[in-house]
Amino acid sequence: MDVLEAIKTRRSSRSFQESDGLPEEIMEAIEQSIINSPSGSNAQESHFVIVQDKEQLKRIKRFSPGLSGNPSLVIVLCSNAREALEKGGKDSEEVLRFVNLGIVAAYILLSTHTLGLGNCPVRSFHKEAIKKLLELPHEMEPELLISLGYSKESPRKKISRSKEEVISFDKYGAIHG
Amino acid sequence: MDVLEAIKTRRSSRSFQESDGLPEEIMEAIEQSIINSPSGSNAQESHFVIVQDKEQLKRIKRFSPGLSGNPSLVIVLCSNAREALEKGGKDSEEVLRFVNLGIVAAYILLSTHTLGLGNCPVRSFHKEAIKKLLELPHEMEPELLISLGYSKESPRKKISRSKEEVISFDKYGAIHG
Repeated sequence: MDVLEAIKTRRSSRSFQESDGLPEEIMEAIEQSIINSPSGSNAQESHFVIVQDKEQLKRIKRFSPGLSGNPSLVIVLCSNAREALEKGGKDSEEVLRFVNLGIVAAYILLSTHTLGLGNCPVRSFHKEAIKKLLELPHEMEPELLISLGYSKESPRKKISRSKEEVISFDKYGAIHG
Repeated sequence: MDVLEAIKTRRSSRSFQESDGLPEEIMEAIEQSIINSPSGSNAQESHFVIVQDKEQLKRIKRFSPGLSGNPSLVIVLCSNAREALEKGGKDSEEVLRFVNLGIVAAYILLSTHTLGLGNCPVRSFHKEAIKKLLELPHEMEPELLISLGYSKESPRKKISRSKEEVISFDKYGAIHG
């Protein structure tokens, strides 16, 4: 599946089939997505915890109201504010490290989608509880979850704004091009 | 080019060949990337200004020290903090809208890369000057530029952290999987 096809067809999945682990090529795709994603000033201040253990998944689910269904795997995207500050300054700490997380999230969403997996980014979870569960170091915070698994349902239709609402040309409000 | 190949081969470009505009399929890829990118709570609080006009590009370059080379096109990713707050609450305003920008940035980076374009995300620019140039409304701020064009040089090698440094399994510091 080429990139544009992946972009057009990928939608969030919120219910998943039961499965005993995911094939190796999916783990490889996740790792490659993480290793190759660009970050501002190449600071690479993010850390990723891939959770597959069924008991650990259950515990994560308990503290994540935004996490629907029973995914086969959850990736916890973590960020280190102190490291971002040291390597990229105040702007990295306040803004850029979140942009970086979005970039790597998108890489994971697209690469796993092309391998037939459903996925969903989740921001609604109990931060302190997840941090404790994963034994994250003091300076590291979980910022985003991505749930992954074989989707049970066909994806919902996305309600998008029109092109004209979100895109301008050369200056705000100018529609052509 | 499939998604994983795009992820593995895409690197930032910082010098570009001269060109008279970009083909229609590239504009289409940019638009599809924008329209289809997911955003938290589907808030879609971002706006995108695609700059192709040569005079406007020159002006943008003047106020963007982080923008290298002479790209054929610059996309200005803008964010509306007020709208993010209204639709997604405090968390959207402070964090999620920047994650959203990262996701759409990655979509654009990958889709245009597969069409043979070089690109580079840029965060170092004079915000107020760009805002004025683009005639952005009061509540909208430019947050990220993406420069695009046919690359002049072969991409630099990325210096990545090792897999073991950035990925843990089930809990922090556990390496297996």
